[in-house]
Amino acid sequence: MARLAIIGLGLIGGSIGLALKRAALPDLEIAGHDAEWGVNRKARKAGAIDKEARTPEDAVEGAALTIIATPILQIRSVLQRIAPVLGEGAAVTDSASTMCEVLDSARELLPDHVNFVGGHPIAGKEHGGIDAADADLFQDQPWAISPALNATEQAIQSVEDMVTLTGARPAIIDAAEHDSYLAAVSHLPLVLSTALFSLASGSQAWPELAAVAGPGFRSATRLASSSPAMSHDISLTNKENLLHWLDRFGEELARFRKLIADGGNQEDLFEAFATVQAARDAFLEAPPEKPGPERPADKTSAGERMLAFMVGDFVVRRTKEMQKLMDDRESEAEEKRKRGGR
Amino acid sequence: MARLAIIGLGLIGGSIGLALKRAALPDLEIAGHDAEWGVNRKARKAGAIDKEARTPEDAVEGAALTIIATPILQIRSVLQRIAPVLGEGAAVTDSASTMCEVLDSARELLPDHVNFVGGHPIAGKEHGGIDAADADLFQDQPWAISPALNATEQAIQSVEDMVTLTGARPAIIDAAEHDSYLAAVSHLPLVLSTALFSLASGSQAWPELAAVAGPGFRSATRLASSSPAMSHDISLTNKENLLHWLDRFGEELARFRKLIADGGNQEDLFEAFATVQAARDAFLEAPPEKPGPERPADKTSAGERMLAFMVGDFVVRRTKEMQKLMDDRESEAEEKRKRGGR
Repeated sequence: MARLAIIGLGLIGGSIGLALKRAALPDLEIAGHDAEWGVNRKARKAGAIDKEARTPEDAVEGAALTIIATPILQIRSVLQRIAPVLGEGAAVTDSASTMCEVLDSARELLPDHVNFVGGHPIAGKEHGGIDAADADLFQDQPWAISPALNATEQAIQSVEDMVTLTGARPAIIDAAEHDSYLAAVSHLPLVLSTALFSLASGSQAWPELAAVAGPGFRSATRLASSSPAMSHDISLTNKENLLHWLDRFGEELARFRKLIADGGNQEDLFEAFATVQAARDAFLEAPPEKPGPERPADKTSAGERMLAFMVGDFVVRRTKEMQKLMDDRESEAEEKRKRGGR
Repeated sequence: MARLAIIGLGLIGGSIGLALKRAALPDLEIAGHDAEWGVNRKARKAGAIDKEARTPEDAVEGAALTIIATPILQIRSVLQRIAPVLGEGAAVTDSASTMCEVLDSARELLPDHVNFVGGHPIAGKEHGGIDAADADLFQDQPWAISPALNATEQAIQSVEDMVTLTGARPAIIDAAEHDSYLAAVSHLPLVLSTALFSLASGSQAWPELAAVAGPGFRSATRLASSSPAMSHDISLTNKENLLHWLDRFGEELARFRKLIADGGNQEDLFEAFATVQAARDAFLEAPPEKPGPERPADKTSAGERMLAFMVGDFVVRRTKEMQKLMDDRESEAEEKRKRGGR
């Protein structure tokens, strides 16, 4: 029996569990832990985990692969707690929206014999929490992967395999580049969406505005429903990149404002809208080449390989532990003999 | 047979036709016209209209109710063309995203015996055109209605009934308020969405950005795929309101920027995100009281009433036309007699 641990069973952690359970790997046990009361049980009843763990330490006990899916700023304390329990060669990944800070924490807090592989499933939903968990959440979505320098090929591969099993497209990416790109296409939209909803709902005319708010307003403000903890943590852990893109957005918005204010340049205004529409249609029809696995995603071999890694690791670790236990007993016996001989 | 005319058979005009055809009113003929080659035929084949009209004038010939669903800046020329053909008491409505300019044009260009009732279905889709037309597009969406001062109760009611038949919720609203509110919840989001996509797709790193762009980016930029003609026309016809809300948005975004930049005030930042999330969740769960019909929407009586208006109007108009024809013939005969007697 190979064990996989999921710490944090919200939308992302719960959906990972559901997606992996659907892959129906033989001999895979998923242990899960969430700090919020009642969530463990909900996750097990929903079929996202096999085993409810009382603590993060309990969850990762004997786990060859651990996925941390808590809010970003809680990852440090989870790493601190599980560090002593993680076995030799164990792989640990996460689901945070920023990479660099998490990799720094992992380097600082995890022992060298643990392989940290940063992970970020780029997927989400209007509502969070275990109740919104969905086995299809990651289907065909990108899942960024930034391995720590000391991570073994096998550990990286096992995380890629796990990602493939959820239906997502693993994409290895440099952590700093990840944080810069995500600031543009995820964290900036999050702040814009929030500021837009804040402006409208803070207006005195809000009841009237809400009455004529249609699907366009709803999609433009979808990200304003993100977990405030996530939004807050992203803003702090990716601050410089986010501020950079906020300022660039301010410039771009000023360009549009000028085109609108300057009624004389109607052709320029039309051109500006038309260029963007064409670019977005092109993006929807044929997205730019996406990084992904060189071989096509094959869930069967991904599952077999991940299990082999996990069982292999488990066996190696158990063997070492047994060895250590025997060594300890031997030393103890030796000591007794010495003491006896004194 | 009562005739309803739809001028402009894109996403909105086509969807209105499909929704009304689905209501299956007896003795209702929908004539449609689109300026783009081939669209009339597509609309008829899709079942959105019964009759392809070669010109706007042909479409409104004998129509008691006309819906103009062209881009905003084309409405004036449509009004000019159909004005001489519209019968006594005919109702004319539109689907433009701004009200005031359209009402001004109608007052200027339509004869007094025509009832103009401004209309704006607040619904849309990622892609436009007749191919995207959808009988369900308006289901449960607000549809703003701003009657001209001279419009009769019956004409206003017939437009409300038409709206009810599409599944939308008619909401009578002052035109100036409409334009101000829509600037906040529709036109501002349109410009933000466009500027965001423009910024990202104009970046040198766009292929990399696109590779990690997930569903959040997609929903935040959905409105950037709007028809550039519509976006352009909105920006020109609702300029002052739009500029006002753009500036207020700039202030709100600056507030968030400051909270993010000021790492010391983490609680304020969390609070700001949490307040907006709670407000949006409340909005999704129980939107503020929406203006709507006082009586619950009843499609059967809406259909019967609309037809009665249309047939009544048609009969009155035809009777008057016959009367005029007979008068003309009589005068002609009289003249002949006079000439003969000379």
